[in-house]
Amino acid sequence: MKRTIVSAFGGLSEAHRRRIDKTAEKLGFEVLFFNSDHEAEKAVSAAEVLFSESVFLAEKAVNAKWICSPFAGMDRFAESPLAGRKDVLFSNTSGAYGIAISEHIVLTALQILRRQEEYRRIISMHEWKRDLPVRSLYGSRIVIAGTGDIGRNTAIRMRAFSPASITGINQSLENPDSVFDQVIPSTSLPLILPDTDILILALPETPATRHLISASVLSLMPEGMILINVGRGSAIDQAALISRLREGTLYAGLDVFEEEPIPEKDAIWDCPNLIITPHCAGNTSLPYTVDLITDLFLEDLKNYAEGLPLKRQVNLTRGY
Amino acid sequence: MKRTIVSAFGGLSEAHRRRIDKTAEKLGFEVLFFNSDHEAEKAVSAAEVLFSESVFLAEKAVNAKWICSPFAGMDRFAESPLAGRKDVLFSNTSGAYGIAISEHIVLTALQILRRQEEYRRIISMHEWKRDLPVRSLYGSRIVIAGTGDIGRNTAIRMRAFSPASITGINQSLENPDSVFDQVIPSTSLPLILPDTDILILALPETPATRHLISASVLSLMPEGMILINVGRGSAIDQAALISRLREGTLYAGLDVFEEEPIPEKDAIWDCPNLIITPHCAGNTSLPYTVDLITDLFLEDLKNYAEGLPLKRQVNLTRGY
Repeated sequence: MKRTIVSAFGGLSEAHRRRIDKTAEKLGFEVLFFNSDHEAEKAVSAAEVLFSESVFLAEKAVNAKWICSPFAGMDRFAESPLAGRKDVLFSNTSGAYGIAISEHIVLTALQILRRQEEYRRIISMHEWKRDLPVRSLYGSRIVIAGTGDIGRNTAIRMRAFSPASITGINQSLENPDSVFDQVIPSTSLPLILPDTDILILALPETPATRHLISASVLSLMPEGMILINVGRGSAIDQAALISRLREGTLYAGLDVFEEEPIPEKDAIWDCPNLIITPHCAGNTSLPYTVDLITDLFLEDLKNYAEGLPLKRQVNLTRGY
Repeated sequence: MKRTIVSAFGGLSEAHRRRIDKTAEKLGFEVLFFNSDHEAEKAVSAAEVLFSESVFLAEKAVNAKWICSPFAGMDRFAESPLAGRKDVLFSNTSGAYGIAISEHIVLTALQILRRQEEYRRIISMHEWKRDLPVRSLYGSRIVIAGTGDIGRNTAIRMRAFSPASITGINQSLENPDSVFDQVIPSTSLPLILPDTDILILALPETPATRHLISASVLSLMPEGMILINVGRGSAIDQAALISRLREGTLYAGLDVFEEEPIPEKDAIWDCPNLIITPHCAGNTSLPYTVDLITDLFLEDLKNYAEGLPLKRQVNLTRGY
């Protein structure tokens, strides 16, 4: 009898499903594809493998031995009773989002540096004012907290703009492919902040990253600094950031927030010097992102079938 | 008696002036600095060398042997009676603007690809809609018309985003530093256009570039293509572009126009799928741009003093 995979990831095209089917069949699996959690609910108890980002489905997958999320962040799994299931392997598709999110980061940094929103307003009034002093990635001192897929892809792209320096922050102090000029621990962030032009947060949500950007850390940011967050909203004390932004000496680009969607009366909506995007930086509507997600799932399906360690296994307690 | 340089470039700081003074003195020149054309007018007839972008001043510099513009484009000189002065060397500071303008180009391409203006409008209404399909520089087929300072700097930056291809267009078919995958003549543009995702125009104004993008060339552009112009507005048949943009199947980012400032009643102001900037891509308010302009002027001042060919001499008839 074939072993069962339940896939409830709605982003898959017919071509992606055929690719998954073909590999699964060779490895002795049958795949049941569903377009929604609701449809998948009845079948999920039969799944040995679940391919879904849904905590709701994962909790009902009582016979699952491996649960793979097509998203990168696993914080919602970690906050659920699933965190106690020691009989299940959890993995993600970290590595599929770096291309899309790094393009978002370069875009946001340049929008702020080049005062593109002010120029847009000038042009929208049919005016011709062309002398706003703009800034440049060239010669900028860039710090990237998080040196995983997103951090690395961002460093590679930023390097082509000839910044003065690119510093990575992680706990292992490893410098993957030497894409960073130096790698420092997050405890050194306060030391480097006064000499930072652009700080990018590409961190998973873990107990250690929560409010890494506190009121006291915010107070160390120099005038004109740009703060970009694409990881999780919890990394920033959002109320403290709002206060600092209202002083008019800091710039920010936020794709993630403490509460999403942003509540109707939240003060963050109308802060000065802030570009908000609605958690769309890693948009999976890019066909190649779903291609990559499929590749990464199939790579670990082979590992799983052969009893090898999963390449993207996540420790829910550690958070990555 | 010292030979006279008149400088009327208002972008120079005190530090830049000191640097120019120091080099000029060593070479036997005295420099008269002015902040405006009006102030410089009375002194300009004494100038052997004029450092100014002003055609008005250049026409009054009757004893000048060398006129250097701190800008890149020389089209206004070429259109004036100065074009007939065979006793004067003309040069520019081409090479000072590539960094700033290439950052503008990457910004504009990403704004359009990632539908950042639509996301801005969604957020401005305090809405949370995050599923607009976006596109990517990754895998894009990029064509850059003009392989000078701007084209090269743009290719270097675009390369870091892993596009499918970067094609250069020039008349010499040279591939400077091999930054392009291939270099083709402008006569081949119609052949490559149907397979182009992003077309960037970084061309000087010459008789050959005028209306290079004609109505018939516009009709070859595939649905969804992005056209970016940072050179001179005359490269595009603007009325034809407006018609094509109104069809809703082409995107454009324009920093230059047939008439600048854009006339009050011009239809270009409110075209769909168009990002307008007010000829600010090469903004000289970037301190390093003025640093570079100063470097390039002083390099050619040494060449001039020693009787060597100027490195950035411009043939006003050819246009570059």
